Amino acid sequence: MMRPPVTHNLLDTLAARLGPAHVLTDAADIAPHLGETRGLYHGEALAVVRPRDTQEVAFVVGTCAAARVPVVAHGGNTGLVGGGVPFGGVVISLARLDRVRAVDPLDATITVEAGCVLANVQQAADAAGMLFPLSLASEGSCRIGGNLATNAGGTAVLAYGNARELTLGLEVVLADGQVWNGLHALRKDNSGYDLKNLFVGSEGTLGIITAAVLRLHPRPVSKATAFLGLASARAALEAFGRLRDRLGPRLTAFEYVPRFPLEVVLRHLPGAVRPLEGDHAAYALVEVSSPAPDAPGELEARLGDLIEAGLVEDAVLAQSEAQGAALWRLRESLSEMQGYEGGSIKHDVSVPVSRVAEFLERASAACEAALPGVRVCAFGHFGDGNIHFNLTQPVGAEKAAFLAEWPRFNRIVHDIVHGMNGSIAAEHGVGLIKRDELPRYKDPVALDLMRRLKGALDPLGILNPGKVLAAEGAPEAFPARTLPGKVTAA
Amino acid sequence: MMRPPVTHNLLDTLAARLGPAHVLTDAADIAPHLGETRGLYHGEALAVVRPRDTQEVAFVVGTCAAARVPVVAHGGNTGLVGGGVPFGGVVISLARLDRVRAVDPLDATITVEAGCVLANVQQAADAAGMLFPLSLASEGSCRIGGNLATNAGGTAVLAYGNARELTLGLEVVLADGQVWNGLHALRKDNSGYDLKNLFVGSEGTLGIITAAVLRLHPRPVSKATAFLGLASARAALEAFGRLRDRLGPRLTAFEYVPRFPLEVVLRHLPGAVRPLEGDHAAYALVEVSSPAPDAPGELEARLGDLIEAGLVEDAVLAQSEAQGAALWRLRESLSEMQGYEGGSIKHDVSVPVSRVAEFLERASAACEAALPGVRVCAFGHFGDGNIHFNLTQPVGAEKAAFLAEWPRFNRIVHDIVHGMNGSIAAEHGVGLIKRDELPRYKDPVALDLMRRLKGALDPLGILNPGKVLAAEGAPEAFPARTLPGKVTAA
Repeated sequence: MMRPPVTHNLLDTLAARLGPAHVLTDAADIAPHLGETRGLYHGEALAVVRPRDTQEVAFVVGTCAAARVPVVAHGGNTGLVGGGVPFGGVVISLARLDRVRAVDPLDATITVEAGCVLANVQQAADAAGMLFPLSLASEGSCRIGGNLATNAGGTAVLAYGNARELTLGLEVVLADGQVWNGLHALRKDNSGYDLKNLFVGSEGTLGIITAAVLRLHPRPVSKATAFLGLASARAALEAFGRLRDRLGPRLTAFEYVPRFPLEVVLRHLPGAVRPLEGDHAAYALVEVSSPAPDAPGELEARLGDLIEAGLVEDAVLAQSEAQGAALWRLRESLSEMQGYEGGSIKHDVSVPVSRVAEFLERASAACEAALPGVRVCAFGHFGDGNIHFNLTQPVGAEKAAFLAEWPRFNRIVHDIVHGMNGSIAAEHGVGLIKRDELPRYKDPVALDLMRRLKGALDPLGILNPGKVLAAEGAPEAFPARTLPGKVTAA
Repeated sequence: MMRPPVTHNLLDTLAARLGPAHVLTDAADIAPHLGETRGLYHGEALAVVRPRDTQEVAFVVGTCAAARVPVVAHGGNTGLVGGGVPFGGVVISLARLDRVRAVDPLDATITVEAGCVLANVQQAADAAGMLFPLSLASEGSCRIGGNLATNAGGTAVLAYGNARELTLGLEVVLADGQVWNGLHALRKDNSGYDLKNLFVGSEGTLGIITAAVLRLHPRPVSKATAFLGLASARAALEAFGRLRDRLGPRLTAFEYVPRFPLEVVLRHLPGAVRPLEGDHAAYALVEVSSPAPDAPGELEARLGDLIEAGLVEDAVLAQSEAQGAALWRLRESLSEMQGYEGGSIKHDVSVPVSRVAEFLERASAACEAALPGVRVCAFGHFGDGNIHFNLTQPVGAEKAAFLAEWPRFNRIVHDIVHGMNGSIAAEHGVGLIKRDELPRYKDPVALDLMRRLKGALDPLGILNPGKVLAAEGAPEAFPARTLPGKVTAA
C-alpha cells in the first residue's frame, strides 16, 4: 500500500474546518494520546484533532482517507490492550462529542454522543429515574464510544449483558467519511443485516462510533450486597449455580476473589477492613437487585440455604449502603493494589461457566509449576466465566525480568483456555497486545471472515490499522519495539 | 454473472454422497418446498437435498458453488416473507440435522442442530430443569435454524430478547462450503469481530447455520396471566410503562388486542370464551413470571394499582394454568382466525415503544380514510413496540381485489412507520415480500454496507439469491409474477 508523504496541506485543511485550536501538533499536547494505561506501548501521531460533532468527524475521516493517512479514534484512552495507540496518522479525540441527546424513560432509552463519560451516562439515566447498568472501574473517565468500540463488560454483565446487549442503535462514521445513521430505538428490527453488532467490539477498525441509542432498565428499588467465605472455586461454582437458579435476573453480581488478592488489597488499600473474621480459601461478592424492597431479605434467605447446604463457610450481609460500597471497593481496587506487589502479567480470559473452577485449578497449577514462587492473583466475573488471570511476580524477583516472561505465560494460560473452548480476549479486547495471539487460537475460517469484513468496510486500511488484525501492507507503522511480545515494563 | 447450464452431473455427485434417497427430484416430493405459508409465491427447484450432518451440508454447498448453482436453506418452511422460496437451484433441507448435541444446566446452555423443531428445543431445556424462552405460534413445526436465520421474535422478547439475544455460538456453512466453527458457550468473548450476529437474521443469504449454542434461563417457579380491559391504546401504554418499571424482568409479556381482533377470535375460535364481561376499546394480555412463588400475588397487587389509577377498566387474573392457557390461546389464534373474515393485508412493523399508541391511532385513521369499510386488525407485541398491523377486507368486498391494494397500503403504513423512525420489518424479516420496500426506507448507507457484506461473504451470489437484497446479476431467477407487489391471492 502506498502512503504518500503527508504534507502540511492535510493539517491545514483540518484546521480550516475544525479551527486551529482543535488541531493539536505540539509534542506536549499530543503526548497524552500516544501512550496507554499500562505503559506497554508508546506511539506517535501527526496530530490530535478534536472535532465537535459527527459532521466534523466525517470530514476528518474523509480528508484523511483521501490522503491515505490512518486515523485512530480516542475516547477516554483507558483501554488495556493498546487498541488506541497511534503509529503515525491522526488521532481523532471524541471528547467534545459529549452531549446526551435524549433520555426517554418510557422507551427506556438514552441517546448519547460517543464522548460522554460513562459516569455521566449513568447519571443522566438516574436523573430520569432509570438505570444504565454498564459499570466498570474506569467509569469516571472512560467514554461511552470506547465502551461500545470495545464491547465493554464490567460488573453488571450477569444480569444486563455486555455493552453490546445494551446497544439499540448507532451512528457511525465509515472509512470513507460517510455517516451511517442507525440511531434507532427499536426492540425488534429485522430490516436487513445486523450492522450494529459489527461495529460494537471492532475497536475502531471498521468505523468510528459517534453516537448511540442505549437501553435503560428500571432502577432497582432495593439492593443487597454480601461477602461470602468459601472453601474452594468449586464450592463457589456450586453456590453460584444455586443462586442464579433461585434468583434469576435479580442476581446482579457474583464476583470471585481468592485469598491472595484479598490479602493484597487489605495490605495496600487505605482504610480497607477485613470483611470476614475467619480465613477462607476463596471469597465471593454477591449482589442482589430487585424492583421490590425485598433484596436484603431475599439474599439473607438464600445465604442461609447455602450455609445450611455446606457450600458457604461464612457470610456477611452489608447492613447499609456504605457497608455495601466498602465491599465493592475491595473488589474494584484489586487491579490497582496488585501493582504494589510488583510486576503483573495479566490475562483476560473466559471459559464456559461450568468449567471456571476447573480452569482456575489447572491454570494456577501450571503457572506455579512454570515459575516457582509466582503468585497467582486470579479474580473476576465468575458468573460470566470471565477471570482476570493475573500473575504477581515472586517476592524479591526483578520486575523487568518477570515481565519478560509474559509470552511464556501467555502460552501456558492461553493453551489451557483454548483447550476448554474459551476466549483469550474476554472483555478487554484484542488491540495490539493479543493481535498476534489470535492466529494461533482463532478458527482460521473466522480469521478469514474477519479479514474479508475489514477489506469490505475499510479497503484502504485507514481505520486504526494493525489493531485486532495485522495490517500486512503497512508494517512500517509498527516499529519492532512495539510489537506484542516485546513489551516494555511500565 | 454467468450461470452455466446445470447438468445431471451435479445431482449425481450429490446423490453419491448423500444417498439417492436424500436427493429428491420428483415433482410431488419437492412441491412442499416450493411454496410458503401464505401462498403468495410459488418457486421452482432442481432438487431438494436432505443432508444428515454439517459435513454433508458443506459438501452440498461447495459442490453447488463450484457449479454456480444457488442454494436455499429450509427449516420448517414456516416463514412469512417468502424468504425460503427457491427460484431454481437446490433446496437444502436441514430437517435431518435434528440432534440436541448437549444440554448444560450449570452453563445454562443448550447446543442444538439447525433442524431441531423449536418445541423440541424447549422440551429438552425443560427436561434439564431450565427454560428456553423463544416462543411463537409455529413452534410445533418451525426449526431452530430458521428461527436464528430470521432472528425470530415472538411472545417472550420483552424479558428474554429475540433469537439473537438467545444465541451464544454458531456453526455456519459458508458460501464456498467452508465451515465456520463458532460453537462457543461464552458469556464474554471479545476476540475479534462479532461474526455470530452477522449470520443471525441474514435469512440464509450470508451462510447456512447448521448448529447453535443457545442461552437458557432458570425456569420460573410461578407464573400469572391476566386479561385487562382498557379504554385506549394510550391507556395501555401508560399501564405497560408502570408494570415494566415495577416488575422489571418479571414482566414477561404485554400483548395488545383491540376490540375488533378479540371479536374476530371469539366469533371463529371453537370453544373461545369472552374473558371479560364488559366491552372495552382495547385489551392486553399480561404475564408475570418469577423465580419465587410470588407471581400471582405480585400481578394481582399491580393490577389493583392500575385499576385504582384509572388506567385499567377491568381485569381478570387466571385462577389456574388452564385458564391462563385459554387466555393465551385467544392471543395466539388471532392471526389464523383473521382469515375467516376474508382477505388480510399484513404489516409487521415496529416503532419506539413510547410511540406505539400514536402509531396505532395514525395508521388506523389513514387506512380507514384510504378505504372506507376496511377493518383494522392490529395487535401484537406492544411492549416491544412491534405491531402486526393487519387489515381485514371490508364486509362483502372481493378478496382478490382487496389484496391487490396491498402495495397502496404498504405505502400508507410504511410511510407512517418510517416517519416515526420505526422498522417496516420488525420480526418476520425481509425475504421477498419486503425486499423492494427496503431501498425506499432504509438509509442508503446501510443498504450499501449490506451489499458490501453480501459481496464479501458470498461473492458468487450462491446463497438464497434475491432475498433481502435484489440479486442484480440474476434477474432470470425471478419471474415477474413473483416480484413483490405482484402478489397473488392465497
